[in-house]
Amino acid sequence: MKTLPSCGLNWISGSGESSEVVLSTRVRLARNVQGFRFGNNFVESDGVSVLNRVRSSLRENDYGDACVFLEFDQINRLQQRILLERRLVSPELVGTEEDGPPSGSALILAPNDGLSVMVNEEDHLRIQTIFSGLALSQAWHMADEMDELLGSAIPFAYHNEFGFLTSCPSNVGSGLRASVLVHLPGLVLTNEIGKVLEGISQIGLTARGLYGEGSDVVGNFFQISNQTTLGKIEENLVDHLETMIRRVIGYEHEARQVVMKNGANITEDRVWRAYGLLKYSRSLSFAELMGLLSRVRLGIGLKLLPDLGVYTLNKIMLFTQRAHLEEAAGRPLTSTERNLYRATYVRKALNTKEAQGDDEEKASSNIL
Amino acid sequence: MKTLPSCGLNWISGSGESSEVVLSTRVRLARNVQGFRFGNNFVESDGVSVLNRVRSSLRENDYGDACVFLEFDQINRLQQRILLERRLVSPELVGTEEDGPPSGSALILAPNDGLSVMVNEEDHLRIQTIFSGLALSQAWHMADEMDELLGSAIPFAYHNEFGFLTSCPSNVGSGLRASVLVHLPGLVLTNEIGKVLEGISQIGLTARGLYGEGSDVVGNFFQISNQTTLGKIEENLVDHLETMIRRVIGYEHEARQVVMKNGANITEDRVWRAYGLLKYSRSLSFAELMGLLSRVRLGIGLKLLPDLGVYTLNKIMLFTQRAHLEEAAGRPLTSTERNLYRATYVRKALNTKEAQGDDEEKASSNIL
Repeated sequence: MKTLPSCGLNWISGSGESSEVVLSTRVRLARNVQGFRFGNNFVESDGVSVLNRVRSSLRENDYGDACVFLEFDQINRLQQRILLERRLVSPELVGTEEDGPPSGSALILAPNDGLSVMVNEEDHLRIQTIFSGLALSQAWHMADEMDELLGSAIPFAYHNEFGFLTSCPSNVGSGLRASVLVHLPGLVLTNEIGKVLEGISQIGLTARGLYGEGSDVVGNFFQISNQTTLGKIEENLVDHLETMIRRVIGYEHEARQVVMKNGANITEDRVWRAYGLLKYSRSLSFAELMGLLSRVRLGIGLKLLPDLGVYTLNKIMLFTQRAHLEEAAGRPLTSTERNLYRATYVRKALNTKEAQGDDEEKASSNIL
Repeated sequence: MKTLPSCGLNWISGSGESSEVVLSTRVRLARNVQGFRFGNNFVESDGVSVLNRVRSSLRENDYGDACVFLEFDQINRLQQRILLERRLVSPELVGTEEDGPPSGSALILAPNDGLSVMVNEEDHLRIQTIFSGLALSQAWHMADEMDELLGSAIPFAYHNEFGFLTSCPSNVGSGLRASVLVHLPGLVLTNEIGKVLEGISQIGLTARGLYGEGSDVVGNFFQISNQTTLGKIEENLVDHLETMIRRVIGYEHEARQVVMKNGANITEDRVWRAYGLLKYSRSLSFAELMGLLSRVRLGIGLKLLPDLGVYTLNKIMLFTQRAHLEEAAGRPLTSTERNLYRATYVRKALNTKEAQGDDEEKASSNIL
């Protein structure tokens, strides 16, 4: 296949509830298939069997042929990395440069944008949904429907006492992980972020960087998710997270007001300088870019940049990652070249009509 | 008087020879009037008499009533500081905040733009000319004509062996100081500036900062002038300086080529980032501004910014100084306020039609 389908990208649209703070909402359910080994005992031949089982189940169900199967031994390394940058697959599914993904690894994209299934990641199946803005209930229900559908055709590994069995003990039970990606520059600027993150960890939630476990916090983005899955009803987990996220959003709004009250001029200056650098730089590292985008995103939240929408920033964030830049260039790029290509992309993105106030097309158009 | 006349400002037009390196050319002749005390023996009553003597001489001559007399006891402190920022008077003429200027201090603006006379600075008269670009011969001839005209009506203090007598021994002889303000970012970036400045000092020239003796080098501007005045024919002094300046311009051009050859991307990035910051910052210190203007000026020299002319940069440099900002605001400004007003001026200046490529109006229009 030459290019990847552009589905699964609605999460960058910058729409949805509280989109001035919340970038996206994700839910994923970890499931394993009875009769096949998983976790440390996983064997590749089982992986292929699992994939075939899922494929036939989907075909026999409502979806028919509507799902797109991206089997990892049929797409190249660059395309795998692109899916990773789109946050549609995990680093585990892509595997190391040396070993690559195991046989049977695949991403299944459902026709309803935002719904997909990773096959043969840490668990046999990871049903996942991703939405723009704060949409925990929506995300949970869409994942739940797919779970019902697949569960009715495939016997999932289940223990009466513990619940769904998973590769990693931390996922046993509901197998559910819900996470919300929030942008908290106000809390960072007012130095209150530490307190908030501490509070989060005390109520069974965890905060990570943009790219999940172990990743750095860049651009003041924090991924807040539930830590425990055992012995909880799914709806309760989701509700609990939503309540806490709403509280964090409230803190962030207050912090932004404090930032403006204590130094509107300094904040405006920081925001506009970042915008100026984005608009004119000829070379940008990804780290610098994320810092600048964070300031500009804050500026949009504070209504200092009335003509710019977060969709443009999300698009920039997505398409200036390494694999996307190399896909566009048609060849591998050195670090120096990537910085030049990245700056070029940013300049173009900020000079399009939509970045000047016409935010209509959005992600619905084919952005590849 | 409410506002100052805008004459004497043609030097910011960004026109003239080698204007990609040379900002302006100045010539001044130090003269004292026989029969009046000068230097350490100067008394204020003599100052007033000298001024009256000059006034009547000009009236009786070709100029009639065409000259504008700005007597320092008739203009306020802010206006005096504005003249200083326009480089039409020296710090010595303006005097300290405590003492102010001595009686009889004045600036006479001739109708031919670029020609003026400071009265009762260190010497009774300082005939001075200032031109845009490299124009030593023009500047010298215009000063010489005024010298002839005044000298024919007023007996100048002259010694047959030493020449014209001046307050400071370093000016005795021709009383001539010619100086060229050059922008040497290439030589600074290639670290060759030290060698060039050393060479200059070995051939009887001196290099100073933007605002003359004792001032810091800001924005990579250097004022190169003759150091000796004694025992030299004026034309020779001027020719010698011109030859050396042309050599420096050549070195600077070579350095700019080296800069581009060794890192075109880095240089372009530096130039455009500076432009972006100028265009969008909400607060700018004068020091930061000068650094940014220097980079953008280099960009214009390298033809990286085809739509921008140095006139716009010169205008920004002039009008964002403290007294000019306070004049525009109509009140004294704190340092923080000045930074905000400065950034506002810069943004407006870069968004005018002329800064977008239409460089026609220039300094000929009344820019006050």
